[in-house]
Amino acid sequence: MALKNTREANYPEWYQNVVAAADMAENSASPGCMVIKAWGYGIWENIRNIFDEQFRETGHDNCYFPLFIPLSFFQKEADHVEGFAKEMAVVTHSRLGKADGKLVPQSPLDEPLVVRPTSETIIADSFAKWIKSYRDLPVLVNQWANVVRWEMRPRLFLRTREFLWQEGHTAHATAAEAEAETKQMLEVYRDVAENALALPVLVGRKPEHEKFPGAVDTYCIEAMMQDGKALQAGTSHFLGQNFAKSAGISFVNNEGKTEFAYTTSWGVSTRLIGGVIMTHADDEGMVVPPRIAPYQVILVPVIKNEADREAVTNYIEQIKNQIKSLTPFGEKIRIKIDNRNKSSVDKFWDWTRKGAPIICEIGMRDVEGGKVMVKERLKLGTPEGKQIMSAEQFAEDVADRLEAVQKEMFNRAKTRLENNIRTDIVTHEAFEKYFANANRFLKEGDSNAVAFVRGKWSGDPNSEELLKALKITIRCIPFDQSGTKGECLLTGAKDAEIDVIYARTY
Amino acid sequence: MALKNTREANYPEWYQNVVAAADMAENSASPGCMVIKAWGYGIWENIRNIFDEQFRETGHDNCYFPLFIPLSFFQKEADHVEGFAKEMAVVTHSRLGKADGKLVPQSPLDEPLVVRPTSETIIADSFAKWIKSYRDLPVLVNQWANVVRWEMRPRLFLRTREFLWQEGHTAHATAAEAEAETKQMLEVYRDVAENALALPVLVGRKPEHEKFPGAVDTYCIEAMMQDGKALQAGTSHFLGQNFAKSAGISFVNNEGKTEFAYTTSWGVSTRLIGGVIMTHADDEGMVVPPRIAPYQVILVPVIKNEADREAVTNYIEQIKNQIKSLTPFGEKIRIKIDNRNKSSVDKFWDWTRKGAPIICEIGMRDVEGGKVMVKERLKLGTPEGKQIMSAEQFAEDVADRLEAVQKEMFNRAKTRLENNIRTDIVTHEAFEKYFANANRFLKEGDSNAVAFVRGKWSGDPNSEELLKALKITIRCIPFDQSGTKGECLLTGAKDAEIDVIYARTY
Repeated sequence: MALKNTREANYPEWYQNVVAAADMAENSASPGCMVIKAWGYGIWENIRNIFDEQFRETGHDNCYFPLFIPLSFFQKEADHVEGFAKEMAVVTHSRLGKADGKLVPQSPLDEPLVVRPTSETIIADSFAKWIKSYRDLPVLVNQWANVVRWEMRPRLFLRTREFLWQEGHTAHATAAEAEAETKQMLEVYRDVAENALALPVLVGRKPEHEKFPGAVDTYCIEAMMQDGKALQAGTSHFLGQNFAKSAGISFVNNEGKTEFAYTTSWGVSTRLIGGVIMTHADDEGMVVPPRIAPYQVILVPVIKNEADREAVTNYIEQIKNQIKSLTPFGEKIRIKIDNRNKSSVDKFWDWTRKGAPIICEIGMRDVEGGKVMVKERLKLGTPEGKQIMSAEQFAEDVADRLEAVQKEMFNRAKTRLENNIRTDIVTHEAFEKYFANANRFLKEGDSNAVAFVRGKWSGDPNSEELLKALKITIRCIPFDQSGTKGECLLTGAKDAEIDVIYARTY
Repeated sequence: MALKNTREANYPEWYQNVVAAADMAENSASPGCMVIKAWGYGIWENIRNIFDEQFRETGHDNCYFPLFIPLSFFQKEADHVEGFAKEMAVVTHSRLGKADGKLVPQSPLDEPLVVRPTSETIIADSFAKWIKSYRDLPVLVNQWANVVRWEMRPRLFLRTREFLWQEGHTAHATAAEAEAETKQMLEVYRDVAENALALPVLVGRKPEHEKFPGAVDTYCIEAMMQDGKALQAGTSHFLGQNFAKSAGISFVNNEGKTEFAYTTSWGVSTRLIGGVIMTHADDEGMVVPPRIAPYQVILVPVIKNEADREAVTNYIEQIKNQIKSLTPFGEKIRIKIDNRNKSSVDKFWDWTRKGAPIICEIGMRDVEGGKVMVKERLKLGTPEGKQIMSAEQFAEDVADRLEAVQKEMFNRAKTRLENNIRTDIVTHEAFEKYFANANRFLKEGDSNAVAFVRGKWSGDPNSEELLKALKITIRCIPFDQSGTKGECLLTGAKDAEIDVIYARTY
């Protein structure tokens, strides 16, 4: 029943296999755009709800800003446009007409409109209107929206031309307050990634050449995928007064003087789902962390004899009623009875490929014995992955069991991350040699397996080119700096002070 | 403290005043697009959540389909494109470049992309891939998304170039099943409009010339605004096999024969918020039905003496704790303590203009007496609108009070609707005369007030032009037909059989 490709044999193909087998998303007729199907969208809704609660608790209001940004807004912010200029969808006409019996664009716009790749410029324009006095500050908003970046090599969830995300935007009276906000939201990202998505992350600051266009500082959370590559899972930007100056976000401070505000922005996207897949899925398909699973418990009736249908159906309803008020993770449990017109074996494999955390198969023998066959997706194929227990015990245990699965998923990923940050490479020579040969799937003790390298960096201005030559990136400058000096792994320069994470990425 | 314009003096201006005073939305720098601010977006989120629950209960899954639709997809569906062709945003380039130092669109697309005005064509393309056999049916999906129609006279919430909506799309094996789905979702719309938005509606079918482009039948819910005009609040379309044929949604039925599927689509949008405003707001600002209010209870501290601050703050926290686990409407109560740096009078008027259902003002005298000053927004300015009561009584009553306000809002609007459907106009002559003179704000017993007219229609094919000449529309053919014959109000033809609702609209 395994997927066509294993992780080890062909990781990129395996990824596509998982997305298809779990029925999470597919390519659409709209080039480079995806259709997010029910199981994928359900995961996204759960992620959204968990973030939303934290955004609210930290004082942010959800709003909605326009999809279209006048072209002139990009002209205003020189640094910003340099970073994005290459990849934007541009609306130039507002009408379809006919020419030679074929539809053609008509009515050219006076000013072309850019489909938002991100909304700093248009939101800054609103902020400029809203903010007059220090009493109006801080302004703390967030929006859930679609954005478009014209990717040339689209991949489902990871890099699509249209994707869904949230973007928080805030304005503050002081740099210190804005920086604190930037870090607070990074911490929200870390918390949700680790505790809801079971995605252990490294936190830190981006080097100069990896910053968001127009930002003073970009902070990030970085995760390790099962092939040892890094995935940027969320970013939080301190924008200083850059956008405030170009958009005119100024305010009268409490001494009567006019100042520019300090702004921030921060975002996570449907790419997180790609990260969850590449962290937790296995060679049989998806494995969804219970906290974000659209359904946490699947009840599959096993009807061998048509005469048993009513008894089995009633028994399953009973079990559902026994557990439906449970609250694993402090939220209402999500249960699905699968009554589709399909064999129970096919149903089991459907939910296995989708990665539903707990799949129960219930037949006449269970009805008679008051039992339930409980299968844990995470432990598929192991003896503990399959247990027959009394319905009472199941009802008593299931919430704890879901929480235990969540913890176990995090711990496994955390162990993988910790075991595969190499700190034994301390010279430029060894570093070059390692990345020249690092081409194997992550495996404990394999010195040629792709992994992260934590080591020194001199901050050399030519780093970007050197990194490109080695096909690697600096993921971040971790907050926990050692303070020691050593050889720059990238350039060989002595007395380099900065600790960074070097890694391959997608 | 009243708004600049009253409803009676200048209804369109009054509407803009309410939206601004309640801080719900504003025009943006992106022409014709709105910024939905926190209070407006919070209302939308509540509307979304209530619908979502009903969509789920009726078996629909949320998914997400692409923003962009290849131009050729519109070519396929001739009827459909005729209806929409005039008002679409078209993406023609995928890059910004520079010419003479100015940003310009570059990299023309091989095929232009239309920003979805609605998603029938692109979703039908997915359905064609998903559906092979009768076992795959029905397919029941919904998406929450932004759509774009190039409106030339934009008005906040009512008619903006970009708006938010949900669009349900389903495919079925038989016409009967698809028609039942169409009507089921219309009933969901009626239920939510009446019970959550306190918006009484008429339900019926659209006449031929008002149908959705490409539909066999369009059903609708229609509401009456305070100026006696009609607002279409939601539509549900039975699409027959039209989209199935152009997109190739076919399946092998249970006798082994290949057939085209029958599809439906149905949608409501942020326009509903415009309907809620025009139904419930008054000359002081917005009045939000409690069920969809972002905050249902506002607690405003009244600090006359800085020394009292702590006592008042603690007392308010206590009150919040006493009520925070209440569940009016079966949902967690939404409470806001307004601690902004503003006078309590200003705060009271802010929340009054926003239309928060219950506003409590609490000062030192209340702390000492164990009291609360409770103001009901709906009854602003009346003796019952303002009550001092014990904190215990308030906590005991508040959930019921919110539910009573909800009911009262619905009843008031229902009475207005029922009292202003004229059935006393039974001849073509009287009908023409009435609409020639109907120019006054809705007022009981005023024969020249704008109202709905329920009467006969012959179904004449020239009706559209005749209606235009009178500046009216047929809103719907109500489900409850009388079965009698009479003079067609529009043409004067005898023995007309169809009962319709004639009305002015926006």
